[in-house]
Amino acid sequence: MAQFINRKEDLVTEAIDGVLRGANGRLARLDGFPHIKVVVRTDWDKSKVALVSGGGSGHEPAHVGYVGKGMLTAAVCGDVFASPSVDAVLAGILAVSGPAGCVLIVKNYTGDRLNFGLAAERARAYGIKVAMVIVDDDIALPDLPQARGVAGTLFVHKIAGALAESGADLETVCTAAKQVVSDVSSIGMSLDTCTVPGSPKEARIAVGKAELGLGIHGESGIELVDFEGAKIAMALVLERLKPHAGQGSKVVLLNNLGGATPLEMAVLAEEMAKSSVIDDIQYLVGPAPMMTSLDMRGFSVSILPVQPRELTLLQSEVPMLDWPGCIALSAPGIVPIPDGLTPIKPIPSEDPKVAEFIANCCDVFLGAEAELNALDAQSGDGDTGSTLAGASRALKAAIPQLPLADSTQLYRAIGLELSQTMGGSSGVLLAIFFSAVGDAASSGLPNVEALKAGLARVQEVGGAALGDRTMIDSLAPALDALPDGFNAAAKSARAGAEHTANIVKAKAGRASYISEDRLSGHNDPGAEAVALLFESLT
Amino acid sequence: MAQFINRKEDLVTEAIDGVLRGANGRLARLDGFPHIKVVVRTDWDKSKVALVSGGGSGHEPAHVGYVGKGMLTAAVCGDVFASPSVDAVLAGILAVSGPAGCVLIVKNYTGDRLNFGLAAERARAYGIKVAMVIVDDDIALPDLPQARGVAGTLFVHKIAGALAESGADLETVCTAAKQVVSDVSSIGMSLDTCTVPGSPKEARIAVGKAELGLGIHGESGIELVDFEGAKIAMALVLERLKPHAGQGSKVVLLNNLGGATPLEMAVLAEEMAKSSVIDDIQYLVGPAPMMTSLDMRGFSVSILPVQPRELTLLQSEVPMLDWPGCIALSAPGIVPIPDGLTPIKPIPSEDPKVAEFIANCCDVFLGAEAELNALDAQSGDGDTGSTLAGASRALKAAIPQLPLADSTQLYRAIGLELSQTMGGSSGVLLAIFFSAVGDAASSGLPNVEALKAGLARVQEVGGAALGDRTMIDSLAPALDALPDGFNAAAKSARAGAEHTANIVKAKAGRASYISEDRLSGHNDPGAEAVALLFESLT
Repeated sequence: MAQFINRKEDLVTEAIDGVLRGANGRLARLDGFPHIKVVVRTDWDKSKVALVSGGGSGHEPAHVGYVGKGMLTAAVCGDVFASPSVDAVLAGILAVSGPAGCVLIVKNYTGDRLNFGLAAERARAYGIKVAMVIVDDDIALPDLPQARGVAGTLFVHKIAGALAESGADLETVCTAAKQVVSDVSSIGMSLDTCTVPGSPKEARIAVGKAELGLGIHGESGIELVDFEGAKIAMALVLERLKPHAGQGSKVVLLNNLGGATPLEMAVLAEEMAKSSVIDDIQYLVGPAPMMTSLDMRGFSVSILPVQPRELTLLQSEVPMLDWPGCIALSAPGIVPIPDGLTPIKPIPSEDPKVAEFIANCCDVFLGAEAELNALDAQSGDGDTGSTLAGASRALKAAIPQLPLADSTQLYRAIGLELSQTMGGSSGVLLAIFFSAVGDAASSGLPNVEALKAGLARVQEVGGAALGDRTMIDSLAPALDALPDGFNAAAKSARAGAEHTANIVKAKAGRASYISEDRLSGHNDPGAEAVALLFESLT
Repeated sequence: MAQFINRKEDLVTEAIDGVLRGANGRLARLDGFPHIKVVVRTDWDKSKVALVSGGGSGHEPAHVGYVGKGMLTAAVCGDVFASPSVDAVLAGILAVSGPAGCVLIVKNYTGDRLNFGLAAERARAYGIKVAMVIVDDDIALPDLPQARGVAGTLFVHKIAGALAESGADLETVCTAAKQVVSDVSSIGMSLDTCTVPGSPKEARIAVGKAELGLGIHGESGIELVDFEGAKIAMALVLERLKPHAGQGSKVVLLNNLGGATPLEMAVLAEEMAKSSVIDDIQYLVGPAPMMTSLDMRGFSVSILPVQPRELTLLQSEVPMLDWPGCIALSAPGIVPIPDGLTPIKPIPSEDPKVAEFIANCCDVFLGAEAELNALDAQSGDGDTGSTLAGASRALKAAIPQLPLADSTQLYRAIGLELSQTMGGSSGVLLAIFFSAVGDAASSGLPNVEALKAGLARVQEVGGAALGDRTMIDSLAPALDALPDGFNAAAKSARAGAEHTANIVKAKAGRASYISEDRLSGHNDPGAEAVALLFESLT
């Protein structure tokens, strides 16, 4: 069993109870488990026409997800892909029907027709006015007069439901429902079959192929077509629908058959919207899983021409989250990129002492390239020295363009330079360090405090703490000692760097993936680089 | 490629545009495709604290689905499972941040931390107040200080979003967000890996096993456990969460990692609600796909202890359908089964002539059993004779209990008897026929008209028309001729039955699946049975 269920015999009853627990009291069920699985609205007073639908389970959120104000009054659930019994349907009808009567909305499958049909007869014997609407929206089998009922059923639920909620009488609701049935067309496509609980999965569709024209019970599509991407798939589906699509404004219901990801469905929506195969597609319901076939990686498109009256009914609000609304399609709204992505180039200024200081620092790293690479080879990929040397070379070359006379701007400029030339996590972290130091300096902190603010920001973003075997292990003690002069700082940095050789459980950075044996006895290359830098300043 | 996409390079940009088209104008994107993929609210005036989140794609509906009033102000999207660039994040921050500042909500992955962190620095250089909250709710790796950020992030989005919408200042929003981060815990379980677009699927998890403690990027879970059904799976997950769950009222967020069906998620919700592992789970968010890992068949549970203040923020309404609300868990509401499921037994009454008539009709079918079976063997499974004979035997035995003196009740009683004894589609159809005849008779139609009303109902429910090679082909002409007497009716019934031998394209019933060769030259057994019945009445 590769599904999150218990026994397949209990699947539907457990799932119904699970839905009810989270339904905020909007829904209840009849006390007839396991035989009678009927979910009803709790806010129903029988004063209006009741709408009862249902059928086999495995199509969730249909039909329980559509029970509520403005859509269904009751859903009668069978086991997975099996029609509910006559008794179950009758129980549903009797539970919700008042003097205004009841419309049964039935997908065109023999079992459902017969069981809903006989239940209707038995209800009529009690004097209940029952009408039945059979939905046959599938156009996959054009020669078969008995077309299947698939996702187009949702249009019937919504339009008839909104009408019934408005107080329309049985005949009006029924006539509108039948008009939708006669106008709506659907077809589905899938890249894979579905997994029926308790049965092995049938691997029927080869890679590179898709089935076109499938029902919602795992039955084969009528055609096996080449699958050549979302655009061509959508075009093929729309081509098939075109002769049935009708005139004027149209609504498309884009249904996830269960296993397509939201990314795929959004791409299909985009292709549908961009397509010119069918004119006047102005409104969209979905994309969303609405009438699924368990976990089938497929989609279906249902199309309905609408007049303003139907559109109003389709767009009336309902409290059920599983109805995604009927939205006017629009081109993607695009707003300009804000100014500021290209960093403002600082105005260069001169300060020979600062220039010399920076150049000396760069020289430290240029001279230590091989040594730092060798250290890094013990715990990483051996490029710390080269990375620092490369950045130092670039920074040294950039000195004439730096705002050397303005320390706030200078820190930021160094951060920017490093973020553009150094790459990798360490480049980003050093850029963050210098940017944050620049911020702190601009807010007036003395230089040691500004450096410490930069370190704090690096720790916040990078997530490393003292003792995690990173450059922080030498930088933090160096900054602590810096008020006592460069000698003290260098001594502290050195001690910190040497200590990293004893840290064999790295907790951050790449060294955290390296075995203790390999780390032991070698300084962390970042910490060593910081120590070398401070030592050069003495 | 077994997914509904075009090129994987265009996947995310096409999907974003697809979402925007159906967003009813609520959302727009920055004009930076393909590098900058940022979705923003269109109803945003920068007067409040902005919330920016995002990260790699493949977690839909996160994060675009949560952009809107009361949650995120902008979502910055990377490619599938890849962090967005620093420029993209900066563009998002600059696009939505006003004087009130901006909170970045970042899931704890190195790439996201660094890129969001550096973007924050660059934004601060423009004087924008930017705070960053790093979510690390995953408890799968208790020894790693760098816990991952997973679905618990949604709690941060919702609580911080509601606060920001209420006009709270940056520090208040940030403090509340950090409190959620410190309180929330999550863990996931999966039965299968995910399919990364453009990469082959790794079949890593054996049947009968589940991975516990996974991230949301297809990385392995930390434990491979036996999978023994939904109940035990949920118990295991809750046991792991228990030490982290905190005190008092708790909210559970039940997240579909992408590939679990709504049925499975509802079963998991039921098991969660029934479990006693963790006390005081009083509220539920979901089940729904909220922070997915493409199509992974798995789920995660996030748990958050809440005070009334957080609960109010969690329960405030938002227009985004992808936020399923935060509902008080309740026991399933159960209402009694309505009266009427056990049909009212009619009061027996005597009429010797009617009794004899019924008995004679039954005898016709009892005598024709072998002949009708033989005919049915040509087009079906050879049991029409036996089915009719069995029902006739039962009906004959029931004659003393029938309301023979009340024709309306009699028809209904026959229908009920047949529905209980005959079985199969034909049993249901005959039951519908007699029930409908009874209804029509009760409404005062003369008998032939009542019989025709029954036939019409059978055609409505069964979907068969004249010429479809069913019993209708003899019954319909017989009823048309009945006003001229039994002889005329019998003659018409016979002619109709003989005609079915020429109908080689059956359109309804089981014969529609049989080849033309096999059907040709043989009467339909149902039509033949009707003809035999009318002939017996002459």
